[in-house]
Formats: sequence, C-alpha cells, structure tokens
Amino acid sequence: MYIEKLQLSNFRNYENQFYEFSEGLNCIVGKNGSGKTNLLDAIYFLSLCKSSIHSQDALSIKFDKDFAQIEGRFGKELITCSMQRGGKKSFFYDKVPYEKLSEHIGKYPVVLIAPDDTDLIRDGSETRRKLFDGILSQIDGEYLKLYLSYNKSLDQRNSLLKQFAEHNYFDEDLVRIYSDQLLVTGKKIFDLRKNFVSQFLPLFKKHYDDLSDNREVVEIIYNSECSEENFEAIFLKSIANDLAAQRTTKGIHKDDYEFWMEGKPVKKFGSQGQRKSFIMAIRMAQFDILTQIKGFKPILLLDDIFDKLDEKRIK
Amino acid sequence: MYIEKLQLSNFRNYENQFYEFSEGLNCIVGKNGSGKTNLLDAIYFLSLCKSSIHSQDALSIKFDKDFAQIEGRFGKELITCSMQRGGKKSFFYDKVPYEKLSEHIGKYPVVLIAPDDTDLIRDGSETRRKLFDGILSQIDGEYLKLYLSYNKSLDQRNSLLKQFAEHNYFDEDLVRIYSDQLLVTGKKIFDLRKNFVSQFLPLFKKHYDDLSDNREVVEIIYNSECSEENFEAIFLKSIANDLAAQRTTKGIHKDDYEFWMEGKPVKKFGSQGQRKSFIMAIRMAQFDILTQIKGFKPILLLDDIFDKLDEKRIK
Repeated sequence: MYIEKLQLSNFRNYENQFYEFSEGLNCIVGKNGSGKTNLLDAIYFLSLCKSSIHSQDALSIKFDKDFAQIEGRFGKELITCSMQRGGKKSFFYDKVPYEKLSEHIGKYPVVLIAPDDTDLIRDGSETRRKLFDGILSQIDGEYLKLYLSYNKSLDQRNSLLKQFAEHNYFDEDLVRIYSDQLLVTGKKIFDLRKNFVSQFLPLFKKHYDDLSDNREVVEIIYNSECSEENFEAIFLKSIANDLAAQRTTKGIHKDDYEFWMEGKPVKKFGSQGQRKSFIMAIRMAQFDILTQIKGFKPILLLDDIFDKLDEKRIK
Repeated sequence: MYIEKLQLSNFRNYENQFYEFSEGLNCIVGKNGSGKTNLLDAIYFLSLCKSSIHSQDALSIKFDKDFAQIEGRFGKELITCSMQRGGKKSFFYDKVPYEKLSEHIGKYPVVLIAPDDTDLIRDGSETRRKLFDGILSQIDGEYLKLYLSYNKSLDQRNSLLKQFAEHNYFDEDLVRIYSDQLLVTGKKIFDLRKNFVSQFLPLFKKHYDDLSDNREVVEIIYNSECSEENFEAIFLKSIANDLAAQRTTKGIHKDDYEFWMEGKPVKKFGSQGQRKSFIMAIRMAQFDILTQIKGFKPILLLDDIFDKLDEKRIK
C-alpha cells in the first residue's frame, strides 16, 4: 500500500497542487518555507484525520480561503478530506462519507518522524499518552472506540463536578453512573495499554541497541494508578478530592509512560544525542509493530531526518 | 578575552577533568552521552551563574556526589563556582567570594546556540522574556539590579494578596507600598527594554536577510501593557482582579516579544527552516550587540550547530 496521487486545494500554503509518488522512497526538496512539512502533514492528515502540527483544523485552511481539500489515491481507493472554515471536516471513501472518523483511522497507517519529537521526552505525560494512544488507535479500532467513550464519560463527569461546585449541591448517585462507566472502560484501556507496552518494548530495545552499539540500557515503564490492586476502591474514595478539584483526579487519563536510561530518567539525565536515539528507536519500533499487525508496511514520513542522528548513525 | 583553562569536579557526568582551550575556534568531539553539552554548559554556568539546561542547581552535581566545582581561567583571572547539595552555590573571583552573583554576571559574556532554541518560538511569553532579560542582564548591571528588585517586590505583593485571600482581610495601604515599588521599577525596566529592542532590531533584521537572501520580512514587536499612556491608573484599578487571582495581573512581568514574519506570527505560520533562521538571526544579533557594548567578543558556544541550518546556509 502506498499513496500514488495527492491533490491539495487551499491546504496551508498550497492553492492547487497535484503530486504523484512512486512506490518505495520519495524525496521532497525545496527552500525553507516552500511547504515540505505541509506536504507531509497532508498525508498524515489523510491517514489520522488530523494535523500533526496544528490542533485547530482552521489553521490547515489557506489563510485567505474558507475551504480546503486533501485528496489521496491509494491504489484503487480514493480518500477525500474536506474542511470548511467554522464548520466540520468530512472524510470520504470513494466519495462516500464516513459516519465516524474512527472508521477511517488505521486503514492507511503512517509513522511520522519530525524534529519536534524530543517533546516526547521533555513534555508532561499527556504528550506520551498521545503518542501511544495514537499508535494503539491505528492498530486496534476497538481501542479507539474505548478511548473515545472513556473521554466522553470523563468530560461528562467533570462537567457534573463543576456544576455541583457552582451550585453547592451534590448527588452521589448521579456521579456514580459516570464513575462506573470510567471504571469499566478504564480497566479495558489499562489492559490493552499494558499488553501493548510488553509487545512494544522488545522491538524498541532492539532498535536502541542497534543505534547505540549496546551502549546504554533503556526502559519504558508503563505507570498507571489502575495497576493498584484495589484501584476501584481508591477511585471511589477520591470523590471528595474530585469535588474540590472539579475534575476526576484518578484514572487512566493520568497514566504515564516513563522513559529510563541506565536506571535514570532520560528527561533529566539523557544527553541530546541519547534523546534523539531514544526517540528514533521508538519510531522504528512503531513502524515494526504496525507492519507486524497490519501485515503491510505503513507510510513512513521523514521530516528533516538528518537533524536527528549523527553521521555514523545515519549510515 | 577567552577561556584558557577549565577544571571540572563532580560536575554532571565529569568526575575530575581538565581542559585547555586555544584562542579562536575550539571543536569538541565525542560520542553521544559523553558530555559535550555538559562541557559547554559548564562555561555557560561560569558566566551566567546558572545552567542553561537545569533550573535546579542540584542536578548539576554528579548524581552520587554532594559537591561540585567549576573553575575557569580567563587570562590572569580565575573564576570558581562551588556547589553543595542542599546548600547555596558560591562564586569566587581570584579566590575572593562575590557578595552577590549579580556583580559577576556580564563580566564574561556568552552566547549559546542550542538545539532546544526553537522553544523561543513555541513556548509562552516567559521563555522570550527570559531570553531578552538574559541579554540585557549581561549588558547592563543596572538592568539586572532593577530586574531582581522588581521580582522581589512582585513576590512580596503576591504573597500579601494570597494572605489577604486566606484570612478574608484587606489592607489597601499595605498593598499600595508594593504597588508603588512595582510602578517605579517597572517603568524603568520598560524604558530599558523598549530602548534595547530598538537597538537590537536592525542587527537582527540584517542577519535574517543574510540568512534568507531577503526572502521574508521579519519583525520583533515588544508588547507591554506599560506602553499604555494611563498604565499607572490601569494598574491601580486592577486591585480587585489581583485579589481574586491572588497575584499581580498587570505589569512588565507580563510583557511579550512577538515574533512576526510576513505580517503573521512565526509561531503559527513559520516553517521549520524559517524558525531556525529566525532563531539563528537572534543569536547572531545577540553576539553583535554584546560585542558592540562590551568592546570585545563574547564566548560563542555552538551546540550541535549543524542541526540548525541547511547546507547552503551553513556556508
């Protein structure tokens, strides 16, 4: 599977542009600001229904236009995404609209390696959860559904907590409905994440060893409050805290994936070169695991790849 | 002026290491994780009394030790920094301790160009204030004193506001003392920042034009609430907001330096290459302005410089 043709209309700095790609390796060259990253992001967008750069879709529409379209041909399959400023984005498979974006995600898996990737180490846990949720969502449609359902229940429980605080009122039974939903869905997500990390880890370690000539021992530790044996009790007991904080303080939305090297956190003790290799090994493992599970290779988008590694490691 | 000798003891991954440097260009080579960045950071530390990597000094002491020392010889002058875990750091000029670190900062100016620099574009206003406060502090000892005094008054006013909120009590006269201090010091800082930007801008633009072959029009806009004609009245009127927020909501600690390109914010619309050139031009202008004002060239620390620019721009 590969993307054969790409048509961009009013996407970022593109007005109307058509591209054809070959099977295998394609190189994109051009001056700074000519749109190389935007072109990769269009392919990412077609695959994952969102940009890797901007969280607001409106920023993907050319600044002086109200409408943008990305169209990609994968063999006989035609995928179209259209965006309206101030409106919703729609995805089409051979001109037929999807009812839910989640039906599309995972069909055309991509792995993007981009210069901002070291955020994965420097940022808070949210960035790392997003990374692994992204991989898991491409692998397993069930995971994506659970994840969306969990987030919906979480939003509802949080707005309920907010309302209680505002009106100085409390109805435990009402909160309980959402608590139960979070516990059930959260447990399933926890199991899938835990299982995923155990599959991912050996692939990651192998790549890190190759990149570093076995110089450092690395580890990714999945850290979740749900791993506590009595998590359900802990969760239900935290209602007083939740009311004070006006949000759900416990659950899989607080999970972290800790990055370790030689028994110490990479965030504090990893050098720049070590961080780059760490991230590169994650991306290569992501590529491997998608290949294994899908049975075909995902599209690999390399943005400014020579930023990432020293001469020796490039070879 | 250049650093001739450097002795590191228990600094980061160094146990006991001695280096000699030549006048002119020195290149540091070594494998990932061997300590190249830490070496540059030691020189940065000697100059600016703090790390460019870690905000906690304790993280600069070798993890299994309680004491670290950096010693640098600049011609006949010997600068020593010693740090004790859990204690204070001290700086010495020819073995004589400084009473205040602010007496030292600016004597041995440095400019560091590091891979994480694009944070200057992506992060919030604090990162950009720190950048320009850092340059100004190296240029002008008076600025540094004003800046430290402003921050002290700000802390005091904020903790007063917090106490009032906690004890449900309010004494306007007491707040007024700190308000007046902030207004007087803030006005001086505002004038110095404004004047600095007007000096800095032509140097920056010239370097950006050179790097980009005049391809884009760039701008740095100093944005401060203090530029409002009736700022004093606005500040004093905001006391109700300040009490609610339990902190001082107006003043030069909220200033921003906005980065623009072709009439649009670089943060949202600049490509990776454009961002790199933007930051590089800032660093080169920083080097120029320090050279102009000090009458000699600062130490230039280039960390992983080939990350920053494409082949053509490196030449």
